[in-house]
Amino acid sequence: MNSRFLKACRQQPVDTTPIWIMRQAGRYLPEYRSTRAKAGDFLTLCKTPDLACEVALQPVERLGVDAAILFSDILVPVEAMGVGLRFTEGEGPRLEPVRSQADLARLHVPDPVAETGFVMDAVRAIRRALPPGIPLIGFSGAPFTLASYVVEGGTSRNFRHVLGWLYEDPAGLGRLMDLLTETVILYLKAQVEAGAQALQLFDTWAGVLSRRQYREVAAPATARIAAALRGLGVPLILYVNGSAPFLEEMAGTGVDVISVDWRVSLGEAAQRTRGATALQGNLDPMALYAPPKILEREAARVLAEAPAVGHVFNLGHGIQPDAPVESAVALVEVVHRLGRKEP
Amino acid sequence: MNSRFLKACRQQPVDTTPIWIMRQAGRYLPEYRSTRAKAGDFLTLCKTPDLACEVALQPVERLGVDAAILFSDILVPVEAMGVGLRFTEGEGPRLEPVRSQADLARLHVPDPVAETGFVMDAVRAIRRALPPGIPLIGFSGAPFTLASYVVEGGTSRNFRHVLGWLYEDPAGLGRLMDLLTETVILYLKAQVEAGAQALQLFDTWAGVLSRRQYREVAAPATARIAAALRGLGVPLILYVNGSAPFLEEMAGTGVDVISVDWRVSLGEAAQRTRGATALQGNLDPMALYAPPKILEREAARVLAEAPAVGHVFNLGHGIQPDAPVESAVALVEVVHRLGRKEP
Repeated sequence: MNSRFLKACRQQPVDTTPIWIMRQAGRYLPEYRSTRAKAGDFLTLCKTPDLACEVALQPVERLGVDAAILFSDILVPVEAMGVGLRFTEGEGPRLEPVRSQADLARLHVPDPVAETGFVMDAVRAIRRALPPGIPLIGFSGAPFTLASYVVEGGTSRNFRHVLGWLYEDPAGLGRLMDLLTETVILYLKAQVEAGAQALQLFDTWAGVLSRRQYREVAAPATARIAAALRGLGVPLILYVNGSAPFLEEMAGTGVDVISVDWRVSLGEAAQRTRGATALQGNLDPMALYAPPKILEREAARVLAEAPAVGHVFNLGHGIQPDAPVESAVALVEVVHRLGRKEP
Repeated sequence: MNSRFLKACRQQPVDTTPIWIMRQAGRYLPEYRSTRAKAGDFLTLCKTPDLACEVALQPVERLGVDAAILFSDILVPVEAMGVGLRFTEGEGPRLEPVRSQADLARLHVPDPVAETGFVMDAVRAIRRALPPGIPLIGFSGAPFTLASYVVEGGTSRNFRHVLGWLYEDPAGLGRLMDLLTETVILYLKAQVEAGAQALQLFDTWAGVLSRRQYREVAAPATARIAAALRGLGVPLILYVNGSAPFLEEMAGTGVDVISVDWRVSLGEAAQRTRGATALQGNLDPMALYAPPKILEREAARVLAEAPAVGHVFNLGHGIQPDAPVESAVALVEVVHRLGRKEP
């Protein structure tokens, strides 16, 4: 398959700019909320391939996006490593914190097929159900972001424990990063074997790191993953929220696409990364609350700043649960219309 | 007075690097907690000059920092404008949201002496009580950050309402920004008249803006303030958390000192701002949880990256409520020892 999404990821010419939306299968869609209600709780939704498939397809049907993304949670492989996990309504994930070598000794690198087979089943189900020409993106959390969750025991405002560990015992945290890196490599390889045609690494929290720390801690793990996946022939996308300090280092990891948040223009990102990768992004998710004309103007700005080849339109961060569906629909139409290339 | 803090703000040579710590008068200090208990609630502490003076002096005595900072809350002038404000334990400030021209019409630019006289009384009390050679920093929230609080009605994760207003009706939000800018100018002038010898503008939340938005919305307001205060002869410091996308624009506002968060090295910040201003910062606040040797190594790194003249040591963000006091004490000693200049 050589869809416009995959072509753009490979910096090849396309008929019009492809678009998908981070968290496109999510709460802003009424049909998602109805499937979610059927599942009961969130983890059950992730672990039931038929339902995960159902929600992954919803934005393709409703919005007409150019790619589907696996529906799952980035903590699924972490739970399989042996970290206790539960979701509490309105509070986000709660994990048993891993903060010592003794805690680390209780973890293992899971066999992705044997221990997270429901994810691979979901990948296969979504691939079977997708219309021709719409590729499926698999994904994983990146090691630093997963380490943050695992060490903090959930989301955090200041990342005190993971950064404290990094200052005090970088080699110890390095062992956790290594375990996570091996886990992510196997997990993503299995997704490709099951049918994923592109992959996105979410290093959402790496924006808390200094440029030096990103270079020393997060970038090497991402580079190992990129190297391990290179032979599979699927493009790898890297997303960090708050990446302005280290776009150059992200481009140096060997990923194929950098997903840029809304703070830095794509023109500046292209200049700083010297066109080494395709770029994804980067509309401010808050623009979806604006009236249609303003949304169109903001989308046009992003398109004007994007490189001539190698641009996948997306938001600079995930779509919010209360974003208006009609804005998401309008955005896809606008990008396809304004992104059309001269024949 | 020509203390090492004021000299460094003016990019003049000093005997050793001056240091103060954002939120140095705060909950990590047991003596603060005891004064706070006397006051009862937080706003009463801010509005009682004797108690505000007491807590402002505590870090000078306990840590030996090179400057004191007024103890107050950035929402004090906003309340004086006519925005209802209350603090709820553990939840932060709650304000009556301002989201329309009708809401705006109910606000006024307060007379800082008549309506926030307790702040000026606190400035005078602190000046009287400070040891010779230790200057007093006055402060205010910067207009965009104050607008965020006022429009969102408190702290926010996504700043949906203020950014929504910006997209939909930039002229309307501009009127709020103008009111806030006039308020901040009068408020800071009054602090200088009462005795403040330097000023810091906290544009803490401006890091949510894109570079373009910072340039169009936040920077012009800061530039107006810098221009209005220039004749007073006190250095103006500008802090933004997450300033990597627009350090150049910050330097262009005409402030004297840019306070850099921990994500970008001072060496890189100096290069990007071409030495136009002094630099303040930028130790990661999380380094205070590390053992003494590692804290010293991290402080030495910051000093090594700092410009030869024009550096005020600080954290890259406020000190956390549970940071160890002994680390803060050690940091001041380390900076004074390692920051010593060749005679």
